[in-house]
Amino acid sequence: MNAPLNHTDPLVLFMPSGKRGRFPKGTTVLDAARELGVYVESVCGGRATCGRCQVIVQEGSFAKHKIVSSNDHISAKGAKEERYERIRGLADGRRLSCSSTIEGDLVIDVPQDTVINAQVVRKAALDRVIERSPALQLCYVEVDQPDMHKPLGDLDRLKVMLEKDWGWQDLLVSQHLLPQTQSILRKGQWGVTAAIHRDLESSRPSIIALWPGLHNEAYGIACDIGSTTIAMHLVSLLSGRVVATSGTSNPQIRFGEDLMSRVSYVMMNPEGRQAMTTAVREAINGLVSKVCAEGGVSADDILDAVFVGNPIMHHLFLGIDPTELGQAPFALAVSGAVHTWGSELGLKINHGARVYVLPCIAGHVGADAAAATLSEGPHRQDRMMLLVDVGTNAEIVLGNRERVVAASSPTGPAFEGAEISSGQRAAPGAIERVRIDPETLEPRFRIIGSEKWSDEEGFAEESSALGVTGICGSAIIEVVAEMYLAGIISEDGVVDGSLATRSPRILQSGRTWSYLLHDGKQRITVTQNDVRAIQLAKSALYAGIKLLMEKLGVQRVDTIRFAGAFGSFIDPKYAMVLGLIPDCDLKEVSAVGNAAGQGALMALLNRDYRREIEDTVRRIEKIETALEPHFQQLFIDAMALPNKVDAFPELARSVTLPARKTSPDEPGTSDGAPRRRSREERAARRSRS
Amino acid sequence: MNAPLNHTDPLVLFMPSGKRGRFPKGTTVLDAARELGVYVESVCGGRATCGRCQVIVQEGSFAKHKIVSSNDHISAKGAKEERYERIRGLADGRRLSCSSTIEGDLVIDVPQDTVINAQVVRKAALDRVIERSPALQLCYVEVDQPDMHKPLGDLDRLKVMLEKDWGWQDLLVSQHLLPQTQSILRKGQWGVTAAIHRDLESSRPSIIALWPGLHNEAYGIACDIGSTTIAMHLVSLLSGRVVATSGTSNPQIRFGEDLMSRVSYVMMNPEGRQAMTTAVREAINGLVSKVCAEGGVSADDILDAVFVGNPIMHHLFLGIDPTELGQAPFALAVSGAVHTWGSELGLKINHGARVYVLPCIAGHVGADAAAATLSEGPHRQDRMMLLVDVGTNAEIVLGNRERVVAASSPTGPAFEGAEISSGQRAAPGAIERVRIDPETLEPRFRIIGSEKWSDEEGFAEESSALGVTGICGSAIIEVVAEMYLAGIISEDGVVDGSLATRSPRILQSGRTWSYLLHDGKQRITVTQNDVRAIQLAKSALYAGIKLLMEKLGVQRVDTIRFAGAFGSFIDPKYAMVLGLIPDCDLKEVSAVGNAAGQGALMALLNRDYRREIEDTVRRIEKIETALEPHFQQLFIDAMALPNKVDAFPELARSVTLPARKTSPDEPGTSDGAPRRRSREERAARRSRS
Repeated sequence: MNAPLNHTDPLVLFMPSGKRGRFPKGTTVLDAARELGVYVESVCGGRATCGRCQVIVQEGSFAKHKIVSSNDHISAKGAKEERYERIRGLADGRRLSCSSTIEGDLVIDVPQDTVINAQVVRKAALDRVIERSPALQLCYVEVDQPDMHKPLGDLDRLKVMLEKDWGWQDLLVSQHLLPQTQSILRKGQWGVTAAIHRDLESSRPSIIALWPGLHNEAYGIACDIGSTTIAMHLVSLLSGRVVATSGTSNPQIRFGEDLMSRVSYVMMNPEGRQAMTTAVREAINGLVSKVCAEGGVSADDILDAVFVGNPIMHHLFLGIDPTELGQAPFALAVSGAVHTWGSELGLKINHGARVYVLPCIAGHVGADAAAATLSEGPHRQDRMMLLVDVGTNAEIVLGNRERVVAASSPTGPAFEGAEISSGQRAAPGAIERVRIDPETLEPRFRIIGSEKWSDEEGFAEESSALGVTGICGSAIIEVVAEMYLAGIISEDGVVDGSLATRSPRILQSGRTWSYLLHDGKQRITVTQNDVRAIQLAKSALYAGIKLLMEKLGVQRVDTIRFAGAFGSFIDPKYAMVLGLIPDCDLKEVSAVGNAAGQGALMALLNRDYRREIEDTVRRIEKIETALEPHFQQLFIDAMALPNKVDAFPELARSVTLPARKTSPDEPGTSDGAPRRRSREERAARRSRS
Repeated sequence: MNAPLNHTDPLVLFMPSGKRGRFPKGTTVLDAARELGVYVESVCGGRATCGRCQVIVQEGSFAKHKIVSSNDHISAKGAKEERYERIRGLADGRRLSCSSTIEGDLVIDVPQDTVINAQVVRKAALDRVIERSPALQLCYVEVDQPDMHKPLGDLDRLKVMLEKDWGWQDLLVSQHLLPQTQSILRKGQWGVTAAIHRDLESSRPSIIALWPGLHNEAYGIACDIGSTTIAMHLVSLLSGRVVATSGTSNPQIRFGEDLMSRVSYVMMNPEGRQAMTTAVREAINGLVSKVCAEGGVSADDILDAVFVGNPIMHHLFLGIDPTELGQAPFALAVSGAVHTWGSELGLKINHGARVYVLPCIAGHVGADAAAATLSEGPHRQDRMMLLVDVGTNAEIVLGNRERVVAASSPTGPAFEGAEISSGQRAAPGAIERVRIDPETLEPRFRIIGSEKWSDEEGFAEESSALGVTGICGSAIIEVVAEMYLAGIISEDGVVDGSLATRSPRILQSGRTWSYLLHDGKQRITVTQNDVRAIQLAKSALYAGIKLLMEKLGVQRVDTIRFAGAFGSFIDPKYAMVLGLIPDCDLKEVSAVGNAAGQGALMALLNRDYRREIEDTVRRIEKIETALEPHFQQLFIDAMALPNKVDAFPELARSVTLPARKTSPDEPGTSDGAPRRRSREERAARRSRS
């Protein structure tokens, strides 16, 4: 590459990166890619045996900016490459970049195999390509045999070769390899593959694993540890392909359904922290087995792992007591990224495997929010993006290239159906869609497990097998919004008892009224308390968002992304009707699924993303809602249901919205209406979430 | 320090380093020391609480290069320093360098407390000062309390403070500290002491331990793992003082007396390697308990450890199978320095303690030889130094500043008394000194446990209690040399049977003759085979030395250092009489005791020595005697006993040395005389050693 370049040298364009440069004839395509910083994997070090450096060659002429057919722009296949093709096969148009040299202008496609599982990430992400630059690299070398004249140790000679062939300087070696090195070298007849791990450009590279001969497999896991669900991707670090994706429920649930009850468990039980740490690590090991079985991969080939989770999950996974997170000032033990070893965490993956845990943003805004930020990238764009992950707390990130702010808002578990009388988990039989006729106040709905609406023919048969068992979390929003649109509840959120004269579905219970959604084996009603719970949750969320908008001095956001399971199932329209989120072009509101898992995957496949999110998290301005006096006012202001019907003409139908009720018992009465909450109450409430 | 310096600024001279510089008035003595690179410990960071930065102040005037009395060259004691003096005391003339400022010319003595135990190191070393620069530093900091407005983790705020107060950037943190950090910070009410470890300037510093409040103790161990004996120093890393020194026998002896029988044990027993690794680690833990008890130190305060040992001990300690070292090409698994953790090696010291193992030079020249080289420093001087460590193999290092060569020579265990008919370990009753009257051929001797010679009055009484039980290893040299000087053996090493007519001490046994040294409860004789064994051992040693001298093209050496127990007990005169070592001014021949342990200590107290020995080991030219065709000739040439009597007139007495015998049965007959050994035989011999 040091030969003087001139304009008659062939021009090579690499796709999809678009990087290009001129190289003297005879340069290998692999060398040209490396020179330009285009990531092309290679394990065998140019011996044409691993096949990892395959590229698709289009010969090109740039003179007229179009590709013309010509056979002499790339070298013919040599003996080594032909041998590889004979034994392992090479698809049409594919070449080994280590063995083919540039002889004329070329367009080179670098295959990008990263495919994100559609189940966990929105369809739009399917075509997103994560540019790869993994922290791990496999390097095959042939080591000199021992020489009594130069009695350098076997490991030392291995290092010499890794420097000579691959340029690795100053290599550290995992302690556990010392006893194995000699037998591996001899078993491989002095040809071995070393796994080199280097987290960041500034860190010292380490040999973390070693195999006899050419070892052509290296995998990583990206894992999002949620309070309820743990999700994992298994990815080939060599091809970038997602090999398997799976999830499991977090077994810590047996210690407490929500986060704060788990913190309480730790505080009350001396062995509680250890028990919960063991539980989550065992569940992760179970998931590792599962994805490995699904992908046909040996867990011993997993060499790098990235974890994200909310602060309490993060701490418990790392074996840290989360007690401090349960009380003001909500102090994290560690907020920066954690670099450690799988073996330190009891993970049943390769003994030398490294673990990277993304940084936490704040005491209630965890590494999962950081990962979602990395995935959606508000900090990478000019437009103002709102990123919301609704769990028991809502984690809210707002910003653009210039500035990013983040906060957590204590929405409580209502959005997850936990404080709702007929609420239940998403399971067959749960109501997931609801429409209410504003004239008759009659509902129609769909349940999970059936494609039919309840007023369609055949629903009775289908539902009799499944049962109609409750309302799933995400449908709560829809029911309350439909009740509002049908005039059953007022702007203040009061169920209008006067409608009982019009419909037998309006039922009195004590001093308040309920709406009867279904009268089957189980009576499914929406009570005044249910509506209040949703109102409280949505005002907390909206107030948090509004607070961040005020901090940035913006009146509206350009785009809204819902991360997490909640966001995947709610209809953004209804979220806007109820006023969960601020005004925004509906086309710009989308659910992004497990954005945290996607961010973890990015950090796994490209270590540059690790630096990016660490820098970003440092830069994010953290807002603690509990410390903002204005938050309480915003919270109260957000309590009423907005008049959004105009914004959604298709929802308006023929209804006339009821006039705002002004009876003296509203709001603030004992019937469950919201009233101004003291700081103490909010803290207690947060403690429950 | 950035203030412009001028020649009117006070001049400060630090002793014993002799470093000097001008500093503006008001500069603290500690800052001045640091500026000049003078090592002054400080834990509390200038709070005048740890007392580690004490110096002895002599006020000075450099105008006439002599110190004049004056009280105004250093600031008066401030409130903090007075408080320290009141509570902890300050010896006369001592000041806390963090709290005293330069106000005029000063001579500052930095106390150097390193005292090497006289038992293990020659007296001459007692006045050797190891300039300190340990890899470990204790740093007290006061950490900001958690702030919800800046939700940085506790550990992250600790790092911020360690950077602000102490300049540590980019700190790593030992994984095991993550779960402890929060409680330690709270227990210390946000004042904590961190142990920062940084092996080499190029490596990233790590927080390896953390205590609430001011922690003012940090210790290290330096350990030499010998095949027979394990020796350990316990040292304060803050003062440099050797707190305790102890030794224990290597429990691996139960698996095999010598190194090669231990390798055989590993080869024959599947669990053998693990058993021997466990044995040596347990012995080391036992020694740790012992030195800690002796020094009144908690093992949890041991934060750094340096180990040396021969290649087989080195491998077994690290858990590496030594089988490859038992056969050509004697491949080391790792020759470079090993940096690891005490916890990885099962050591019962602080969980975060680091371990440094010096590099090995070659398959038979271990980290012990490297440490001895570091201690004696042939590579640091202009004169040609020969360094010999005689064990079952002799490790030989020869060289000076320009070039250093090293080899191992298969002396076998004769020098240790193992192949000698009346040989025994050094214990009460063992003969340790011998003189033979050349006229009468009568011996006189001394035994361990008695100050009297055997011909002195009262010896009978003393010896009757002890018994006269054998000849200790180091006395073998003296007996054979005296026999030679008395004419009992010829230059060829044959016991002269014709002398039987002159003395009843010349006894026939089969075809050869023996010398009766003592006729008590046990008959102690020196047989022809004993003489042959010593001849073989000494020729192997001499041939190895000669080979290295030839490599360097030198005719004589300037100084000879015997390392190890053997060297400590033999009389260099007799070594020269028998031709173990080349000609050298006797004044320049000395025993240096456990030079390996001393080298380990240096690497413990000053990390610059780690770099020094790593560089030196890389630079050393390794000579494998088995591959040198010339070695065999040198070996044969060295077999005869030289005529050294002229060189030692005091030994010559009145004897006429016997004429060189030339009977046809000498050399090479079946009476045990040496003959040319085949390469195979030598390899087999080495296998036994």
